[in-house]
Amino acid sequence: MSSSGGVGVSPGNVAVYHGSNLMVVDRRVRVVEVVLRGVICGLGVVAAVLVGFDTQVKEIFSIQKKAKFTDMKALVFLVIANGIAAAYSLVQGLRCVVSMVRGSVLFKKPLAWAIFSCDQVMAYMMLAAVAAATQSALIAELGQQELQWMKICNMYGKFCSQVGEGIASAVVVSLSMVALSCISAFNLFRLYGGKRSGRC
Amino acid sequence: MSSSGGVGVSPGNVAVYHGSNLMVVDRRVRVVEVVLRGVICGLGVVAAVLVGFDTQVKEIFSIQKKAKFTDMKALVFLVIANGIAAAYSLVQGLRCVVSMVRGSVLFKKPLAWAIFSCDQVMAYMMLAAVAAATQSALIAELGQQELQWMKICNMYGKFCSQVGEGIASAVVVSLSMVALSCISAFNLFRLYGGKRSGRC
Repeated sequence: MSSSGGVGVSPGNVAVYHGSNLMVVDRRVRVVEVVLRGVICGLGVVAAVLVGFDTQVKEIFSIQKKAKFTDMKALVFLVIANGIAAAYSLVQGLRCVVSMVRGSVLFKKPLAWAIFSCDQVMAYMMLAAVAAATQSALIAELGQQELQWMKICNMYGKFCSQVGEGIASAVVVSLSMVALSCISAFNLFRLYGGKRSGRC
Repeated sequence: MSSSGGVGVSPGNVAVYHGSNLMVVDRRVRVVEVVLRGVICGLGVVAAVLVGFDTQVKEIFSIQKKAKFTDMKALVFLVIANGIAAAYSLVQGLRCVVSMVRGSVLFKKPLAWAIFSCDQVMAYMMLAAVAAATQSALIAELGQQELQWMKICNMYGKFCSQVGEGIASAVVVSLSMVALSCISAFNLFRLYGGKRSGRC
């Protein structure tokens, strides 16, 4: 806090050094952020399409039965959650790219709070959707004999394996969302560290 | 950074002001943290006990059938997750109280990273457990006609309502865990803000 800097190390130099250091970290964090948002957007659409357009028709004693994702409420939630996550990531990814091109750095607390909150909500929503869908899929695959809920995947094999692929994509989406929510927490809460500079 | 402070505002005063300001925020954050960890510990045990010790015997055509939580895999996961969350929160709560009594402030990055990581894992684990259990409970309550999974709560009413109370407790536990993971993110990432002090 005093002006007892070494020879050639003026407060100006220190500020510039810190600034460029920060820029390097910022650029890396932002590249990771753009990549993750791209992954979420792409795989979110893949998961929604895989599950949403999955059907299988089976003939049982000359009665046609059709399996579709709306038969299982958890899959409807999964499709909706993936759609929302993909659309949200597209918007956020574009914002990221624009601010990278402009070279602007996120220092505004309200915007950082908004991004942090949305990312958190998305991460928890995606995780809840994946957990609920996995639970339903496990019952469909293994059955729950004690409750006389029969397994149905021996009848609708192709339908079930496609749902499995959709859930696998959704798992990657939700893990990416978790990583992103950590990044946006970093972007937000480091703004609160400045005041402490006199103490450490 | 220079010594051009106003009359009576020496760099020393500024440092003390910032320090005491930080202390007030720190104390408030820590009180909230202790309260949340207490809530998680208490309600985690309540949820685990409510679900874990829930049984109902029903006589159907002179055959006794007993409903218990192990019939539904999602409930087993819920009991285990609540047990882990309660035990973890007890340990973390004690650490919090000790550091409050000692008046020490968390400035060590490795410890802050460890707490942040554990809190994140706990929050996502609890949320996944609640989502899976809610999904199973909804099928038990409403059935899933398309898949011929029959509702069972008309038979085991008392069992189901106790499970519902357990899930409600677990929802509060998971929301508290989410709030805690935000607090530990704040405690960690503000440690990375100091370097920026020359820029804002």
